[in-house]
Amino acid sequence: MSDRARRGRPGHDQQTVLRVAIELFNRQGYDATSMGDLARELGLTKSAIYHHVPSKESLLERALDEALDELSAALDRVQADTDATPAQRLRLAVRTSVVVLAEHLPAVTLLLRVRGNTPAEKNALSRRRDIDHRLAEMVREAAAAGEIRTDVDPLLASRLLFGTVNSMTEWLRGDVDVERLADAVATLAFDGLLRRE
Amino acid sequence: MSDRARRGRPGHDQQTVLRVAIELFNRQGYDATSMGDLARELGLTKSAIYHHVPSKESLLERALDEALDELSAALDRVQADTDATPAQRLRLAVRTSVVVLAEHLPAVTLLLRVRGNTPAEKNALSRRRDIDHRLAEMVREAAAAGEIRTDVDPLLASRLLFGTVNSMTEWLRGDVDVERLADAVATLAFDGLLRRE
Repeated sequence: MSDRARRGRPGHDQQTVLRVAIELFNRQGYDATSMGDLARELGLTKSAIYHHVPSKESLLERALDEALDELSAALDRVQADTDATPAQRLRLAVRTSVVVLAEHLPAVTLLLRVRGNTPAEKNALSRRRDIDHRLAEMVREAAAAGEIRTDVDPLLASRLLFGTVNSMTEWLRGDVDVERLADAVATLAFDGLLRRE
Repeated sequence: MSDRARRGRPGHDQQTVLRVAIELFNRQGYDATSMGDLARELGLTKSAIYHHVPSKESLLERALDEALDELSAALDRVQADTDATPAQRLRLAVRTSVVVLAEHLPAVTLLLRVRGNTPAEKNALSRRRDIDHRLAEMVREAAAAGEIRTDVDPLLASRLLFGTVNSMTEWLRGDVDVERLADAVATLAFDGLLRRE
């Protein structure tokens, strides 16, 4: 019997372990969650879990990479769209951030709670800062192009814009029309709440 | 010697204990903070602390009440302004929420992290929900008055609006021009990021 067959479907099982781990980390905190808790939640023995994953930190790492890889790839796609104006690219960046957040909600929620105690967390914080810098740079470009208001500091505008997006982890639950949600967020952010005559 | 004189200046000392407790709760989490940690941080004995406050939960309660009382009182003032239109009141509510958040940053930060494990936390969550309902109602009134856009659901607009304000606890530090900040947040929220011709 091959090693793969003996383990059942390891690909599937690793995904299940990761999903449940992210859910536990979000519910009770990463530090407060043990591999024993995870085993109990999965109805497995601890040694069965170590069959799939080497350590708790490797689960955290994979969860944070999931969120960061998706956000980076989305920004890459937006920035490659050189036909769009800077403000159009920024609007796309807002939309696509909402979509990534909604489609990878548990992983993004975990990412936004990271405070940086372990190497995996420090690395994730550093990657998150890079993404924030890219977004702030997009706001500056749109301001320099005269497309967005310049009476609000671009760094402040960038923080508020993506603070709005990130705040959605506080209340967003599955089963949402992601595209409509992304449109609503972009509309409010760019066009404002006031009704125009 | 009166009880008061024997204890030194209890009013002052209680405030110091509360400030340091809030700072510790925010830094390492309420559950993970012991009265022993607080004593060490203050350079006091544990019994000296119990001289000032009956329990850890009473410190949490006072911190959460500080944030909630300020937010409620600010909303009361805004809603009493019946000369203003619904959208003007909503704009004032956004401005004043920013001011309260900036001026009571540690207490508001603690409030926004509460997850509701103890009676004090459950009570705070219930008061916070009441405030959220009042804000959502103000958005609905402004929509009904035709002053704000109706193509975005008022509940969603309300969540995004105050999600933006609350997200400021992630990066705001002291030494900020609070009134300018409140103006910038209200301008972006109501008028949008786009430059108008």
